[in-house]
Amino acid sequence: MSDFDAEPGHYGYTFGGREAIGEVKPGTPITLRTLDCFGGKVRTVDDLPSRVCEFPYLNPVTGPLHVQGAQPGDTLAVHVVSLTPSAPVGISSTFPHFGALTSTGLTRTLQAPLDERVWLYDIDLDRQTVRYQARNSAYAVDLPLAPMLGTVGVAPAAGEVRQTIVPDVHGGNLDTPLLGPGATLYLGVNVPGALLALGDGHARQGDGEVCGVAVEVAMDVTIVVEVISGVPTGTPRLETDTQLVSLGAARPLEDAFRISQEDLVRHVAQLTGLDLLDAYQLVSQTTHARAGNVVDPQYVMSGAIDKRYLNGAVAYGGVHDRLRAV
Amino acid sequence: MSDFDAEPGHYGYTFGGREAIGEVKPGTPITLRTLDCFGGKVRTVDDLPSRVCEFPYLNPVTGPLHVQGAQPGDTLAVHVVSLTPSAPVGISSTFPHFGALTSTGLTRTLQAPLDERVWLYDIDLDRQTVRYQARNSAYAVDLPLAPMLGTVGVAPAAGEVRQTIVPDVHGGNLDTPLLGPGATLYLGVNVPGALLALGDGHARQGDGEVCGVAVEVAMDVTIVVEVISGVPTGTPRLETDTQLVSLGAARPLEDAFRISQEDLVRHVAQLTGLDLLDAYQLVSQTTHARAGNVVDPQYVMSGAIDKRYLNGAVAYGGVHDRLRAV
Amino acid sequence: MSDFDAEPGHYGYTFGGREAIGEVKPGTPITLRTLDCFGGKVRTVDDLPSRVCEFPYLNPVTGPLHVQGAQPGDTLAVHVVSLTPSAPVGISSTFPHFGALTSTGLTRTLQAPLDERVWLYDIDLDRQTVRYQARNSAYAVDLPLAPMLGTVGVAPAAGEVRQTIVPDVHGGNLDTPLLGPGATLYLGVNVPGALLALGDGHARQGDGEVCGVAVEVAMDVTIVVEVISGVPTGTPRLETDTQLVSLGAARPLEDAFRISQEDLVRHVAQLTGLDLLDAYQLVSQTTHARAGNVVDPQYVMSGAIDKRYLNGAVAYGGVHDRLRAV
Amino acid sequence: MSDFDAEPGHYGYTFGGREAIGEVKPGTPITLRTLDCFGGKVRTVDDLPSRVCEFPYLNPVTGPLHVQGAQPGDTLAVHVVSLTPSAPVGISSTFPHFGALTSTGLTRTLQAPLDERVWLYDIDLDRQTVRYQARNSAYAVDLPLAPMLGTVGVAPAAGEVRQTIVPDVHGGNLDTPLLGPGATLYLGVNVPGALLALGDGHARQGDGEVCGVAVEVAMDVTIVVEVISGVPTGTPRLETDTQLVSLGAARPLEDAFRISQEDLVRHVAQLTGLDLLDAYQLVSQTTHARAGNVVDPQYVMSGAIDKRYLNGAVAYGGVHDRLRAV
Repeated sequence: MSDFDAEPGHYGYTFGGREAIGEVKPGTPITLRTLDCFGGKVRTVDDLPSRVCEFPYLNPVTGPLHVQGAQPGDTLAVHVVSLTPSAPVGISSTFPHFGALTSTGLTRTLQAPLDERVWLYDIDLDRQTVRYQARNSAYAVDLPLAPMLGTVGVAPAAGEVRQTIVPDVHGGNLDTPLLGPGATLYLGVNVPGALLALGDGHARQGDGEVCGVAVEVAMDVTIVVEVISGVPTGTPRLETDTQLVSLGAARPLEDAFRISQEDLVRHVAQLTGLDLLDAYQLVSQTTHARAGNVVDPQYVMSGAIDKRYLNGAVAYGGVHDRLRAV
Repeated sequence: MSDFDAEPGHYGYTFGGREAIGEVKPGTPITLRTLDCFGGKVRTVDDLPSRVCEFPYLNPVTGPLHVQGAQPGDTLAVHVVSLTPSAPVGISSTFPHFGALTSTGLTRTLQAPLDERVWLYDIDLDRQTVRYQARNSAYAVDLPLAPMLGTVGVAPAAGEVRQTIVPDVHGGNLDTPLLGPGATLYLGVNVPGALLALGDGHARQGDGEVCGVAVEVAMDVTIVVEVISGVPTGTPRLETDTQLVSLGAARPLEDAFRISQEDLVRHVAQLTGLDLLDAYQLVSQTTHARAGNVVDPQYVMSGAIDKRYLNGAVAYGGVHDRLRAV
Repeated sequence: MSDFDAEPGHYGYTFGGREAIGEVKPGTPITLRTLDCFGGKVRTVDDLPSRVCEFPYLNPVTGPLHVQGAQPGDTLAVHVVSLTPSAPVGISSTFPHFGALTSTGLTRTLQAPLDERVWLYDIDLDRQTVRYQARNSAYAVDLPLAPMLGTVGVAPAAGEVRQTIVPDVHGGNLDTPLLGPGATLYLGVNVPGALLALGDGHARQGDGEVCGVAVEVAMDVTIVVEVISGVPTGTPRLETDTQLVSLGAARPLEDAFRISQEDLVRHVAQLTGLDLLDAYQLVSQTTHARAGNVVDPQYVMSGAIDKRYLNGAVAYGGVHDRLRAV
Repeated sequence: MSDFDAEPGHYGYTFGGREAIGEVKPGTPITLRTLDCFGGKVRTVDDLPSRVCEFPYLNPVTGPLHVQGAQPGDTLAVHVVSLTPSAPVGISSTFPHFGALTSTGLTRTLQAPLDERVWLYDIDLDRQTVRYQARNSAYAVDLPLAPMLGTVGVAPAAGEVRQTIVPDVHGGNLDTPLLGPGATLYLGVNVPGALLALGDGHARQGDGEVCGVAVEVAMDVTIVVEVISGVPTGTPRLETDTQLVSLGAARPLEDAFRISQEDLVRHVAQLTGLDLLDAYQLVSQTTHARAGNVVDPQYVMSGAIDKRYLNGAVAYGGVHDRLRAV
């Protein structure tokens, strides 16, 4: 049993615009259940998403949770303790005019959409694999289970309410494979209590979420949060045991890249005392730049630096290590 | 001594438009020397590139080499056997209106350029490191030596001549860290003999070559080439012992991403017999999407799949393994 | 006196998320007053916007107005009867990291911002001019007064709330010079009553609103609205006495262009009975493609066709001509 | 009879890489004939371009012409005296994976291409019209004849050779409807004699050349050129009797926009003595920003200012007025 099950009333389709479903305490592990991005409506290969799902009821997030003590101008650290698929089968699909290798509602053409097709992935928790099975041939192959959360965010600034599918400075549909167990996500707080919500669990995902849909699955989630008072965070950041990461959400993709790298340069400068050009140089020779998603209304790029190049400097006062120890 | 030293007459600043400096035989190792991207003119931190270098005499490539038997419609496989910096110091810099975090001649603004600054990196071949030393503080840190070639290409199609700094379907300034020792690059051949040229060695580089300049260094290069007759290659591909990679060069960056992923999907479909949508799905859940450079007249993204997911399928008739064994 | 003055409580900074300030009747002229985009806080050249204005309290819109009978799935036609500047002086400025020829929060660089500077334009209603006066020289020139509304929109779909500065399918900060007296704007209705709001009057504006700020001025506005029941509109459209126009809001700019042209092609096909390719061809040889703004979180392009090429076909059942006659 | 007929040997498919076919004298009218972009191979609606044309033999330009006295660093002014279609029928078409409303070789998707279709336009020189005739219905309408040259350029800098279909700083496939009779195009000279070539006549074209193909027609052309010594031009500019125009060629489209507007701001500043911010302001309130093409390897935007706002300042020493008078 979770602290917050994914029952009606416990999830929604926006960041902002909804009341907290509960209050949580920094430092105490929280368990919750998230629905898959289809809200559980796609169960067989014949359940075409465009038929069984109804816009805008897609990509539900569990929450929002009121975090005690979080105030505008603070940073909320969300540490992912564990992620366990709560269904035996993961689901992926194509979807008409959604994805990176099709025209879309924004990159419009006059062409016909690609066919809609559903794939089911057997999940083997013992072997820690998900099984790809082709639909039009006998081809199959096991892929490593690599659970992550596609969508984590807080209420946006300026009274905005955004669909969960949009990634932006408030978090949202970031879709980075880096956001798995052991990672800490940093989000700027815009409203009292932050109003954290999360969902869109992926059993695994390639960079860019190319076809628009990962191996989607309901998830049992354990997180622990902390509030870093008086420290703002402008664009989502992330920390693992080995890397510091900045996330940029924008279009075109080079702007997402620019945001992630500029923020990383400024973060490294602040942590190391390097001036801006010296930090620019260090980042240039060390950064990892991977696509998050290239399918949503805004794209995501991650910019990461290995912490070993920071000569011991520690981000956000060492909160990652503290939460990791919980 | 190399088969082809980087003496005047042995290098140039374009792909296409130049006569071969020699003929090379498939299957036989070739040694050559490449100049750094500044042509050796930046030697101290006071040698500002915009003063000591003269446009368009930048980014020299050694060659072109006429490859015996290469014909339009073939693919040229270029296997990198070894790369050894031939200078003890690598060089990086900012450059006015060049780089990802500045306005440029294409992304124009009315703002003043960033300061121009040069960094020198001591290269330690024994420890396999390059040493970052800040210019405005005592901060220093060793980074792993990770040699690669920034620029490898053939003569373009349709009689075009392109500056070496441009990446496109003929190769050119691809700037992917994947192109190091042990990698095989596949390029479509457009003219008899292919007219291969290469240069722009990097002691190391972060993804995206963010500030526009890697740790630049003259390089001793050993390659071995093979011609795959009658097999065209539309956009550059690359193979390592563990990955198959497609490279896309375009602007905006999402188009570079689309090209790399679309080509990877088609390649995987061809190798595995999967239909296009099944291949799209497999790639979506497994691909690695990293920035090559986000600073040149065209940007580069790489799309990679781990070969272990291909159930034994082998690209280009196994040429990578054969060249690896040379 | 207006039906709706721009008093506190009568204006806001979002589309969606606010209660109607009044109900209006289709077919009956409505008068209202709009504040300038600075909310009247910039009065002299020394009132730098970044000092006297406070984010997110920018770009106020008067409303929202509940339109009787408007239901989701309908189209709201908003006809601009007249626009009269209600202040004798229009204001423009640069603004740090905002505009097309500067790095911004999305197109980030490490460069310093441009200087912030305010310009005042004397408005002469008799001569119908606004006077450009340089700040750093005696250069001055009269420009034609060409009043328009920068921002007109309805409550977004899916429960979203957007800042007024964002243009999207619900309208918003479209910033097209085409939206002046005599024009009819068509917006899809997402909520009962549509919740129309408008503001951001410009005494004039060049295409693209290049520096990010037009000649901003409070405005006396007369509009008349009509509801076209059961006819959805996907992206904002506009009609003048001579042109049919589709507006696309997106980034990068080519996606805004694609949306505007694709919608225009489909509209022309529907009105003329041409098949899609024949309509594509007719639009290709006749369209006018102008930048709306290239400075906001999303850019706008307009795609227009002269109505005389439509052989008498009439959009939306002739509502433009009816409203024009009011 | 023309000074330069479009006979074999008189035209080619690149800028750069070809010898001059003749020498021309500044100030003396030159007549020449240009082929249509298909090289005359599409004659009926059954001549599908992808079948009858062979890449890269597309978009032929007549020339290059050696202009007496033109030296690197100069500007070449090319004044279009007259353009007369030399065939009675103009041709347009769709083309697989080419155009703005289809996926392309750069904006790649997995979708099937649009159908390829050819349209023929009867040209009536007396009535100055071209007749659109739908292929799949009886719909027809006369459009104004508005002849223009799609492609005008000189040899590129740095020894590059570019296909004629590429627009860039050397000119090339600019595709702006502004380049008709009475206009003067300004191009920077890169090689002795400039090596001017031109072609791709359009009987008319909408902004953006949306489907990728205008109303293409062979053209009788009269131009007169002048060399402005010692005055460089960085990106193509254009002048008409009423407007000064800067052209930007780049991707994404906002970069083409930025180039055109930044160059216009700098040009206005230079002509009027305004400082950069004052010129930025004046341009922002007056500029016309229209799409050139949004279909080629690089897109084009034009940025124009009405000359009447320049208080009598004259560009390039008044060469436009002098050539207009010839």
